[in-house]
Amino acid sequence: MDATSLNAFMQREFPQVASQFRIERVAPMQADVRLLVGEQHLRPGGTVSGPSMFALADLAMYAVLLAMIGPVALAVTTNASIDFMRKPEAGRDLIGRARLHKLGRTLAVGDVLIVNEGSEAVLARSGMTYAIPPRR
Amino acid sequence: MDATSLNAFMQREFPQVASQFRIERVAPMQADVRLLVGEQHLRPGGTVSGPSMFALADLAMYAVLLAMIGPVALAVTTNASIDFMRKPEAGRDLIGRARLHKLGRTLAVGDVLIVNEGSEAVLARSGMTYAIPPRR
Amino acid sequence: MDATSLNAFMQREFPQVASQFRIERVAPMQADVRLLVGEQHLRPGGTVSGPSMFALADLAMYAVLLAMIGPVALAVTTNASIDFMRKPEAGRDLIGRARLHKLGRTLAVGDVLIVNEGSEAVLARSGMTYAIPPRR
Amino acid sequence: MDATSLNAFMQREFPQVASQFRIERVAPMQADVRLLVGEQHLRPGGTVSGPSMFALADLAMYAVLLAMIGPVALAVTTNASIDFMRKPEAGRDLIGRARLHKLGRTLAVGDVLIVNEGSEAVLARSGMTYAIPPRR
Repeated sequence: MDATSLNAFMQREFPQVASQFRIERVAPMQADVRLLVGEQHLRPGGTVSGPSMFALADLAMYAVLLAMIGPVALAVTTNASIDFMRKPEAGRDLIGRARLHKLGRTLAVGDVLIVNEGSEAVLARSGMTYAIPPRR
Repeated sequence: MDATSLNAFMQREFPQVASQFRIERVAPMQADVRLLVGEQHLRPGGTVSGPSMFALADLAMYAVLLAMIGPVALAVTTNASIDFMRKPEAGRDLIGRARLHKLGRTLAVGDVLIVNEGSEAVLARSGMTYAIPPRR
Repeated sequence: MDATSLNAFMQREFPQVASQFRIERVAPMQADVRLLVGEQHLRPGGTVSGPSMFALADLAMYAVLLAMIGPVALAVTTNASIDFMRKPEAGRDLIGRARLHKLGRTLAVGDVLIVNEGSEAVLARSGMTYAIPPRR
Repeated sequence: MDATSLNAFMQREFPQVASQFRIERVAPMQADVRLLVGEQHLRPGGTVSGPSMFALADLAMYAVLLAMIGPVALAVTTNASIDFMRKPEAGRDLIGRARLHKLGRTLAVGDVLIVNEGSEAVLARSGMTYAIPPRR
């Protein structure tokens, strides 16, 4: 799946969340996803909340997984770890850069670096594992 | 701080999120927090999303920290790991049971078990570290 | 499997490591394992090294898994997170208290608290996932 | 500190472990460390054990930290997460490639990819946080 078909799939399957995110780029074993930062993601001071960054990491990993194996709505996160390192800047979108390290038959493992748009400073780093449901 | 003053503090400082949560119980080094499950937390099939469970774990750890050290709005999560084990049941609130293992001068470390209200089956388990800002 | 048969199994299958550990107690979904602290586990100052505590957590989770499903030498760790909170005391054994939260068909998830023998202060806390090989 | 001075420092401060490792390369915010695989690291079948890979990740992160801030023997790991993805090949050394994402005043955060020498397939990925003691 390419970025256009991924965005269409997200809008269809996850209408509650898809409007907050946009898949920007997919490549073999990689995907970049944007969090369109809005009021609901902010904490006092204008910084993006930790759970919003977690949601971005989770979605970016899901995007790269779907890009590789096709539309499998039922893939689920089994484990995630996340380090929060720097405060996001107020009023800037976030980009999650996901990279798969292993795409197995039942498990996919990768990591996600989160940056502010236009910056290289890593705000958060997440390792994620998805369970892939058996294919029929 | 007790549960009542914690809920009031949350409403004042984090009005965007406080209405989704309720601190139910605090005890030394422990707190139970409820996620009042609504439309915005759900995935297709009626299950609660992973990021919503992460947000519950994060808030439960914040609650026990505030209960112990008082209203320090600027404590921030530095690291979290979470294992998702079972699907939440549709239409049931979630309870996050936070427990501090260490309350140091600059770091607090604990874990959170997430269950459906009225059940003992662990849906998710999270380890969390908060950085405590210097007190003046 | 009970503690005696687990210790015998470990001696037979993992002679390199089994002499450093002793399974002390098993109960449904729980096991306590002792690290018999020796020279090779120490850092300057007499404290037990982080990798030695990781090895204890890993073995304690393996012990509770074997206690529940029988001798499956090929179960492997797929993910672990560990928080180091306090320095172990010099010259004291460590106890890892493992607890399974979920024993599925292909994955087992639990956590381990590490304490000094005779103390309740948590030195380290680990969450662990094991992959269980298909049974024939 | 460069690779030569790091190896000398390790031999002096950690003689128990230094003979198992060799710092191969340091660069700004990066270090590559080799695990000289020996009998004590192996599991049945000739694969390198999980705790040995954890020890490599831990040492590689320590090496890059020392390379950046100088010989601070007392920096300690506060948190680590590790995903084990593929079995190491028997009879091959392992390389841990550490990269710092943040070097703060009190915390350093980075990750480590572990590969077999001469291969690019990621065997394990670890995120690590070190606490840096106050400098006088």
